[in-house]
Amino acid sequence: MNISALLTSSGINTAVCAVLFSLYSILRKQPSLVSVYFGQKLSQVRSKRNDPFWFQRFIPSASWIVKSWVASEEELFAIGGLDAVVFLRAVVFSIRVFSVAGVICLFLVLPLNYFGKEMEHKHIREEQLSVFTIENVKEGSRWLWAHCLALYVISSCACILLYFEYKSITKMRVAYITASHSHPSHFTVLVRAIPWSREESYSVRVAKFFTDYYSSSYLSHQMIYHSGAVQKLMIDAEKIYNMLKSNTVDQHYGSRLSRCGFCGGNSTSFKILSPEPENVRTMSCLDGPDLRQKECGAALVFFRTRFAALVASEALQQPNPMSWVTDLAPEPRDIYWSNLYVPYRIFWIRKIAILVAFILFVTFFLIPVVFTQSLVHLDKLEKVFPFIKGITERRYMKQLISGYLPSVILMIFLSIVPPVMMVFSTLEGSISRSGRKRSTCIKVLYFVIWNVFFANILTEAAIDHYQVSIMKLGDPKTIPNQLAKAVPSTATFFVTYVLTSGWASLSCELIQPFPLLCNSFYRFILRNKDDSSYGSYTFPYHTEVPRVLLFGLLGFTCSVLAPLILPFLLVYFFLAYLVFRNQILDVYVTKYQSGGLYWPIIHNTTIFSLVLTQIIALGVFGIKRSPIASGFTIPLIICTLLFNEYCRQRFHPVFKKTPARTIIDMDREDEHSGRMEEIYQKLPSAYYLMAEKLGHQQALRSKGSRKRLSNYL
Amino acid sequence: MNISALLTSSGINTAVCAVLFSLYSILRKQPSLVSVYFGQKLSQVRSKRNDPFWFQRFIPSASWIVKSWVASEEELFAIGGLDAVVFLRAVVFSIRVFSVAGVICLFLVLPLNYFGKEMEHKHIREEQLSVFTIENVKEGSRWLWAHCLALYVISSCACILLYFEYKSITKMRVAYITASHSHPSHFTVLVRAIPWSREESYSVRVAKFFTDYYSSSYLSHQMIYHSGAVQKLMIDAEKIYNMLKSNTVDQHYGSRLSRCGFCGGNSTSFKILSPEPENVRTMSCLDGPDLRQKECGAALVFFRTRFAALVASEALQQPNPMSWVTDLAPEPRDIYWSNLYVPYRIFWIRKIAILVAFILFVTFFLIPVVFTQSLVHLDKLEKVFPFIKGITERRYMKQLISGYLPSVILMIFLSIVPPVMMVFSTLEGSISRSGRKRSTCIKVLYFVIWNVFFANILTEAAIDHYQVSIMKLGDPKTIPNQLAKAVPSTATFFVTYVLTSGWASLSCELIQPFPLLCNSFYRFILRNKDDSSYGSYTFPYHTEVPRVLLFGLLGFTCSVLAPLILPFLLVYFFLAYLVFRNQILDVYVTKYQSGGLYWPIIHNTTIFSLVLTQIIALGVFGIKRSPIASGFTIPLIICTLLFNEYCRQRFHPVFKKTPARTIIDMDREDEHSGRMEEIYQKLPSAYYLMAEKLGHQQALRSKGSRKRLSNYL
Repeated sequence: MNISALLTSSGINTAVCAVLFSLYSILRKQPSLVSVYFGQKLSQVRSKRNDPFWFQRFIPSASWIVKSWVASEEELFAIGGLDAVVFLRAVVFSIRVFSVAGVICLFLVLPLNYFGKEMEHKHIREEQLSVFTIENVKEGSRWLWAHCLALYVISSCACILLYFEYKSITKMRVAYITASHSHPSHFTVLVRAIPWSREESYSVRVAKFFTDYYSSSYLSHQMIYHSGAVQKLMIDAEKIYNMLKSNTVDQHYGSRLSRCGFCGGNSTSFKILSPEPENVRTMSCLDGPDLRQKECGAALVFFRTRFAALVASEALQQPNPMSWVTDLAPEPRDIYWSNLYVPYRIFWIRKIAILVAFILFVTFFLIPVVFTQSLVHLDKLEKVFPFIKGITERRYMKQLISGYLPSVILMIFLSIVPPVMMVFSTLEGSISRSGRKRSTCIKVLYFVIWNVFFANILTEAAIDHYQVSIMKLGDPKTIPNQLAKAVPSTATFFVTYVLTSGWASLSCELIQPFPLLCNSFYRFILRNKDDSSYGSYTFPYHTEVPRVLLFGLLGFTCSVLAPLILPFLLVYFFLAYLVFRNQILDVYVTKYQSGGLYWPIIHNTTIFSLVLTQIIALGVFGIKRSPIASGFTIPLIICTLLFNEYCRQRFHPVFKKTPARTIIDMDREDEHSGRMEEIYQKLPSAYYLMAEKLGHQQALRSKGSRKRLSNYL
Repeated sequence: MNISALLTSSGINTAVCAVLFSLYSILRKQPSLVSVYFGQKLSQVRSKRNDPFWFQRFIPSASWIVKSWVASEEELFAIGGLDAVVFLRAVVFSIRVFSVAGVICLFLVLPLNYFGKEMEHKHIREEQLSVFTIENVKEGSRWLWAHCLALYVISSCACILLYFEYKSITKMRVAYITASHSHPSHFTVLVRAIPWSREESYSVRVAKFFTDYYSSSYLSHQMIYHSGAVQKLMIDAEKIYNMLKSNTVDQHYGSRLSRCGFCGGNSTSFKILSPEPENVRTMSCLDGPDLRQKECGAALVFFRTRFAALVASEALQQPNPMSWVTDLAPEPRDIYWSNLYVPYRIFWIRKIAILVAFILFVTFFLIPVVFTQSLVHLDKLEKVFPFIKGITERRYMKQLISGYLPSVILMIFLSIVPPVMMVFSTLEGSISRSGRKRSTCIKVLYFVIWNVFFANILTEAAIDHYQVSIMKLGDPKTIPNQLAKAVPSTATFFVTYVLTSGWASLSCELIQPFPLLCNSFYRFILRNKDDSSYGSYTFPYHTEVPRVLLFGLLGFTCSVLAPLILPFLLVYFFLAYLVFRNQILDVYVTKYQSGGLYWPIIHNTTIFSLVLTQIIALGVFGIKRSPIASGFTIPLIICTLLFNEYCRQRFHPVFKKTPARTIIDMDREDEHSGRMEEIYQKLPSAYYLMAEKLGHQQALRSKGSRKRLSNYL
């Protein structure tokens, strides 16, 4: 690939981006699409703007960019939660690091690469991209110290920034915990694997166990019940009925809904169960003996103080660790009900099965990756399969095939990965939706690092030296050298990958094709004019965090070796900054959050990228016979690893355990201000109402828990 | 090596063993050696037997074998603690498994191996050992199913036994916790990394912190003070003085000593500090301002209930995980004082340094191993270095060099390993002596598995095929095949290793050469007739557990491939059973114990051995072209791994955390019986007295703590 092909590719992408961004700025002004582009706003307050013939609606504008630019971090925190802030911090971190890397690499390293060999340079447009990589520096060059210096600058800059980010995010996490005074989850422990006995129901056992061992702090509990298939069908039928008849539904929405609509029982939509006393009595009379059979071996147990709940959740309750398993309960909105019905004892074997399935999936995904990568190397492929020549004879065709097609194919294949990983994470048995998303995020991250980064490099190495048996690629001692040889020459592909996958994904993110289609379907096929009848989406951290981290990895590994990728990356990160701020402010609804638990993933991946970069650089300096540069790289690797270990010791425990002091201070404050009684009263209904809202009202039945609670209060 | 060389070697070893065992039975009857062979008894009660001219003293007898055989497990538990029982269980487990393996392998597999090829057999004495290994089975033999069956029988037998052992040891651990009512450590939390402040002393900060956040359960605390070099010298001088003047020392010993000798302050040996009120007052006057400077950032904090201490030890106290680090305190006898003086913040970097040092040590230890292994293959060595032929021309010489010398050399080199590992574990910052020993045990285990098992096999492979470059050995894909080729042919060495290292180490263990020498030195050089003036030893789990596990690994891996090792191993385990029971009953003092924490190590290593055996068998079946046998081995590997995961889920948490229910029940029982007050009163002095006894009395000064305690009581 030469400069002109690169320019073609970037030209196409820039044009596509510009068109889509303008299209977005028009689409977002259409009142009929408010539910697509203002999901977040809709969930907060009902939009009143209903001016259908507004001229300016059809003129592209940049107002959304300005709005997204000026939003403060506090605003984002209030709307998107800590996770959104953490994600944007990762983007900002990338912008900062790659700005520094860009300056030093484009002004110091790139000229050295270009003039690294005594050769006759063609016209710049015809120049191959490899001329700008470290491949062009001659062996034993005394200018390799510049590459080593650039490596030092980038690594130290990244580490310093990482340290301050980790520090500030740790503080933010503590502040987030402190600020969430009204969260019922702090008082609640989820107990699973309650041992079965013939004599007593699960509910009685839970009550006995906790009054016995946590008598001073136990408040009440709420059993979780199996929701049968028939009931599920009934709910689905009712949902569809409501959707079709939605004009009659009271148009309360969002948080107001959960307080007015359901609690009073005056809405027609949820008739099956409501926590009103008379219903409870009927229900407990109706299926009193039946109820015991429907109990799962799981319960939500409420405590008097947050600290007591924390203690109960962290302790090993019994000499048998497979019974009375306690965890801090997730938030009511965050809880993943379906996994609570599943017996706890089968999760360990499910986890192993999922691990095996994941490994198989990742392995067999190599096939499309190899196919993609082989398209980039058309010239090499032509040698092996001469019949391709006929297709690629036209210059434009060739540029399209080698510059654009591979990334598009890869992108299509990659789009099925997140749903598959989400299924894996669901089966693994996560009790919270945020935990499931986080687990998916980790899986997708492993997947993209392996299948986009390593697989491309290794197939590149295999195609390049196809006389060398592929079997040899797995040899651990040759891997650094293989990487060192392959990374600079794969850089071309990575540049196009950033252009297509990166830039295009951002346009896609803005336009939101899937909700747009859904909206059209509802509006024109179902003739349904209500916006709120179909769900709003939460931020797709499980796809976006891995993408940003993958681009970070590409940026780090290519920075010193093939600096030409950096401008494209910087554009990507800058656009990502604007787009994601806009999406967080306007589109996505924050139903649940993990409280910044994405940061350790981001930190660890960045350290991994840094160390990998340094190892590859070590290999390159070795190949280029520069013992001084190699010698200086080794202490850098050691320092980076030590820095990581320090951060792990200093910050990471806060992301695993809640600090006791923070929790005790919160308890004390609430006790002094007399808010405790109010919290106690809201506790059991908090989970019940949310379960009801999400169609899991069978999971919790308020039988007895109220009575018990009033005894304690 | 042929059968006659093996018989020579085993003859030498049996003779040596018989002589040493008889020698031991005489030596143990000598009254002057009572302190060497009855350390355990001496620590319990003073021996009164003083009949110097007793005729039977010089006749060997088997009485100790009978006594050691009839001792019950309860007796062993009472004397040696749970660790001793766990260790003996591991030996019994090995006897059981290898009995089964011996029966099936000697009667089914061995004949198949011997007649595996159509060949002319020599006289049995001249037969090479390799004829008895799987090497002798011809390719594609239909008798390989027998090997596969043997593998199935051994694996299932091992897994079933492991399951029941793990289950019963878990129960024993819980029973051990429940039984230790009087242990002060249950009420005590060790706080390290107390943050420094200019205004307040550490002691004030600790008091403030715990009265603030654990007000309902905090009882008192005791600071830990730096003990200066001068003071240490003074103590050492005093120790030597006491030792030389030991005739004047009151001959109280053991547990009585700690109550009468020191507490009353009437002994001359420890004048520096005693917890008597007048001394405390003088001391606090004397070095009141000085004391603050000597405070370490560490303290022992006492709680009202065991559960409160458990909660405080498990919680993350602060948003900064590097300050206020809490752990359950070890027992007073178990605490490792020297590491408490070291600032907590440097341990993380020390741990990394130790890890690096450990890896380097293990790597460079390969040199003597390679040298040793090359001696076994004299015939191959003769081809490479012809000058050796002159030495090895005499038959007896050759048998000695190839059959006995290598193991002896290896044993000498190996004897320096445990002390080095102990130093590593000390520097790592373990707060308890049992924890330090356990950490050493793990290090020694890694060391012997790598340096005795793998290094021997790999050098064997390298010598055997020295045309193959050694570089290729590290290739992960060829390792199973390499192992499959090398293990049967290394079996010869392993047999001699069992004979020399195993049998000889047991004789050595019985005779106790080092204490014997010390005893002679004291008695004949220093003319000191008191037995109790030099220390008694604790059981060397850190050398014996790895040894037993290494022999288990050798047994498993060789069982199906080279079954001739099994009789020798069985003899070793049977002798070990007798010898270690005797040693636990008579010799070693149980000063501290880990409460069965060695079992997870034993379990995991056994599973590792099993899986390795199965992988090697898979390789062998592959080489022998038996797809059915290979096919049946794969599900076996999967089942073994699943079994291990199940055990990890089902039993392991009890070895990491104390079950809350057990602890709460104990608290409740003590409260009902009114024993709590008594325990509270003993708490601070328990640690003080033990520190005093061990020469660390500067570490704890009783200033203030008593006063505070009396306020609370």
